[in-house]
Amino acid sequence: MHTPRDLTNDTPQMPAAADLAGAAAAVLASLRARAPRVHCITNAVAQNFTANVLLAAGCVPSMTVDPEEIAAFVARADGLLVNLGTLDRERRAAIEIAVETAGKDNVPWVLDPVFVDRAPPRAAFARVLAGRGPKAVRLNAREFATLAEAEPSPKSLASYAKAYATVVALSGETDMIAEGARLASIGNGHPLMAKVTAMGCAGSALVAACLAVEPDPWRAAAAGLTIIGVAGELAAAKAQGPGSFAVAIIDALYSLDGPALLQRAKVS
Amino acid sequence: MHTPRDLTNDTPQMPAAADLAGAAAAVLASLRARAPRVHCITNAVAQNFTANVLLAAGCVPSMTVDPEEIAAFVARADGLLVNLGTLDRERRAAIEIAVETAGKDNVPWVLDPVFVDRAPPRAAFARVLAGRGPKAVRLNAREFATLAEAEPSPKSLASYAKAYATVVALSGETDMIAEGARLASIGNGHPLMAKVTAMGCAGSALVAACLAVEPDPWRAAAAGLTIIGVAGELAAAKAQGPGSFAVAIIDALYSLDGPALLQRAKVS
Amino acid sequence: MHTPRDLTNDTPQMPAAADLAGAAAAVLASLRARAPRVHCITNAVAQNFTANVLLAAGCVPSMTVDPEEIAAFVARADGLLVNLGTLDRERRAAIEIAVETAGKDNVPWVLDPVFVDRAPPRAAFARVLAGRGPKAVRLNAREFATLAEAEPSPKSLASYAKAYATVVALSGETDMIAEGARLASIGNGHPLMAKVTAMGCAGSALVAACLAVEPDPWRAAAAGLTIIGVAGELAAAKAQGPGSFAVAIIDALYSLDGPALLQRAKVS
Repeated sequence: MHTPRDLTNDTPQMPAAADLAGAAAAVLASLRARAPRVHCITNAVAQNFTANVLLAAGCVPSMTVDPEEIAAFVARADGLLVNLGTLDRERRAAIEIAVETAGKDNVPWVLDPVFVDRAPPRAAFARVLAGRGPKAVRLNAREFATLAEAEPSPKSLASYAKAYATVVALSGETDMIAEGARLASIGNGHPLMAKVTAMGCAGSALVAACLAVEPDPWRAAAAGLTIIGVAGELAAAKAQGPGSFAVAIIDALYSLDGPALLQRAKVS
Repeated sequence: MHTPRDLTNDTPQMPAAADLAGAAAAVLASLRARAPRVHCITNAVAQNFTANVLLAAGCVPSMTVDPEEIAAFVARADGLLVNLGTLDRERRAAIEIAVETAGKDNVPWVLDPVFVDRAPPRAAFARVLAGRGPKAVRLNAREFATLAEAEPSPKSLASYAKAYATVVALSGETDMIAEGARLASIGNGHPLMAKVTAMGCAGSALVAACLAVEPDPWRAAAAGLTIIGVAGELAAAKAQGPGSFAVAIIDALYSLDGPALLQRAKVS
Repeated sequence: MHTPRDLTNDTPQMPAAADLAGAAAAVLASLRARAPRVHCITNAVAQNFTANVLLAAGCVPSMTVDPEEIAAFVARADGLLVNLGTLDRERRAAIEIAVETAGKDNVPWVLDPVFVDRAPPRAAFARVLAGRGPKAVRLNAREFATLAEAEPSPKSLASYAKAYATVVALSGETDMIAEGARLASIGNGHPLMAKVTAMGCAGSALVAACLAVEPDPWRAAAAGLTIIGVAGELAAAKAQGPGSFAVAIIDALYSLDGPALLQRAKVS
């Protein structure tokens, strides 16, 4: 007969941190096993690096931004990224179709409102898109401040997430993932990540991939940023600067496994 | 006086395998010596990596996809790649002009029908282009199955190649190069090649480069895939994952020489 | 009382070489300290590498080429690059607006007339742009010969610079920077720089960054090419070929400091 103590040891009330780290490990395993197709409408600067990040994580990326083809690609995808960098007429038109197709076919999607702080029309477009059902919005502090017209804080993130029925994934020294009453903090990552172009964009693509295999978008977003953050730490240990870091993070993502993720994840 | 045995030793009937390996070495030497200009209409994901692959092999790449400029660039090129990834209106228009210019000015060209299995309109466009005189069609098994409406096999490849009077270069664990009665198999390459975006696209660009210096398109296509396959093996020996592999394959291409190619080529 | 010798030691008449090397070191320090925003209208092949070069040098790059957004981005930028590679209708329209905005808002800009020797309409467009007030024109010998209709020489460079009231920065084995009566020669760099796509484009972007922090455009242009040339030498010492060289030059730029620059600069 088991004593209560034994029972407690066997099935403890897991703290949220271990829960999210475990979720990230499970998501990573699912990416490897299921190789989700992730379609990315993303900026010209980020396309190559993003595709390589997705491949290293076990996914199958596609990248067309052509309005004539986008519906066919999104309909066959398991996740979608809508990134507003290098926005142009074609991308605008493609995004409209992609978001409509994603809604119809239940393809989860992520909004990455790159540089909305730099161009008011882009910010206006981002606000419209935020209302069209992204499962997550991944952005940095300046972009959040522009989009939400509020400085980022646990309260303003939660409020924005609630208003748009989405998950807010804010990248920074500490990432914050907010949805309704749930808030996660992720302490992984490395300063060199800010010195490689498209790193945030690639993180958003990884969140889209995680949404393809994890039905809880809050857990999916936390998993995506934990995975890339831990890979960043492993890469930094081998890098001589941002050039070798960009290479090493692809290698690290490719080699990353559940145990390494559980050991290094700083989520709470 | 030479004995018959001496003569035989001097000019043996070369088996096809050694013949193709030798052809690949000769083609590589020609690329280094003649620095052919290779114009690539290729997808946004692949442009940078493809240009670096061509530079490493000794070629001079150009990449514009603008319909207003494309004729001038193609007319001054020695080889042309038409890759259908991230196809858009501008690329479609540019391809029409490029293919017409190539026909008029005898610039050999390669068709790479990327992802035709994902979008029916792209497949339809690829079928039209296949009929307009590419010297080679480089693709993978899924793309061939869509384009030829037949599973890839020596017979279906030969049949397709004959119907379109072209060379079919099928990438896979073993590459197959078919033209009329001739079939080559190439056993070079490494699984990491499938983990780097644009690797197939870059292989197609290299085939276009080889067509610029080798008049027999079957030999040129076999040379191109042998060269990149051997470079991939050399790179894999130094790589920690797909990130460092993508870097190492450029270094390996740059350093590759005839003896290394002859020693490692697995062609038959 | 100070003897004349003492005075000479304290405030020597600096030779031009040490002056320009010192200027380059001062410019590099300013880039790190002020993190200028550099907007780049550049070709699709170069966007990612250029962004990473700018980040490594301490700048904040942006890359949109959309005519609807370009004015907002240029108005908020400290420097602008106009590169004519992969020129298309959208880029043409964006360039018109960008150059007008730069003129109005006093944003210094660089013209990089990539491949004007390949397409006459592009050369015509470049000639028009050269007359619209770039602080510097960065190009290679073939491009200069097409644009200026004269072989490059100290005299033809000075003449062109005077005619267009700009600085001519000619890349080659030895770079030459001409403006009115001033001519600088830079002997830094490495042959592998010609084997990496977009290296020249990235150099032009770095010149745009230097113009943002150094009001004398001749010194700024010399500083930009000295910085990337020295970084190239440091990278070559660690590279196995053009793949690892492209990675190492980003690392080298990131680590480069004033003393290393002063020690290695070959300017006269």
